[in-house]
Amino acid sequence: MSLHGTYDPQNIFALIIKGDAPCFKLYEDDDVLAFLDLFPQSYGHTLVVPKRAAARNMLDIDPDNLCKMMLAVQKLTRVLVDELQPEGVQVAQFNGAPAGQTVFHIHMHIVPRYAGQGLGMHAANKADVAELEKLQARLVARIRG
Amino acid sequence: MSLHGTYDPQNIFALIIKGDAPCFKLYEDDDVLAFLDLFPQSYGHTLVVPKRAAARNMLDIDPDNLCKMMLAVQKLTRVLVDELQPEGVQVAQFNGAPAGQTVFHIHMHIVPRYAGQGLGMHAANKADVAELEKLQARLVARIRG
Repeated sequence: MSLHGTYDPQNIFALIIKGDAPCFKLYEDDDVLAFLDLFPQSYGHTLVVPKRAAARNMLDIDPDNLCKMMLAVQKLTRVLVDELQPEGVQVAQFNGAPAGQTVFHIHMHIVPRYAGQGLGMHAANKADVAELEKLQARLVARIRG
Repeated sequence: MSLHGTYDPQNIFALIIKGDAPCFKLYEDDDVLAFLDLFPQSYGHTLVVPKRAAARNMLDIDPDNLCKMMLAVQKLTRVLVDELQPEGVQVAQFNGAPAGQTVFHIHMHIVPRYAGQGLGMHAANKADVAELEKLQARLVARIRG
């Protein structure tokens, strides 16, 4: 798929946004949705997607949705740092399959980093559902304050 | 250094912004500066920094500068794609040394990805200056249209 391809409205994140597929939701408002990655590279790996942008990547998202996505990234980064106390956080966004993009609805990864712990491979190992549920409950409680 | 440390106004990017240290500048306006990474992970590896934010990372940048930085990331990503024709682009931002941050002024990495080519190690190998100058000239010409 080229960087300049057409948006596929049946991609899995579009289905999640519409409520037609499940996710471990952390936060939602009119503009953005944040949920846990099913194939986490570290404990707390979170995805943030714009709900109103039919955009594949950084090339085709409109400025307003780009800013709203990033403000949500900041909010969720703060939540993850407060609750999970990682020593670092990587924020990443992949454009095109050769860059590691696997779902073609633009999304930001927030990957907490813990001292002495390496990263799991991207999109390689599915998390345990019970673990994700526990983590989701912790983070949602933190967001609700 | 903790994720919550104090901003050091003598960090190398602060000096570059003030004009007290050199860089291979690609783009500058009142709010942002974009320049080539001296230790590129791929051909065209570019950094975007907010000029008016005394911010170490995603936790402490104000919303306005965060948005302006991201709009510049979008602009530079488009320039790199148009000029260098990579098959993918990774956008990344590191918070804290355990996440790979080496300069403690918030910055975004834009790393073009080419099919069949791996990534260099972050901050590992200094680029040839003559090559950076040629690349800078190409990209500046593209930006000026």
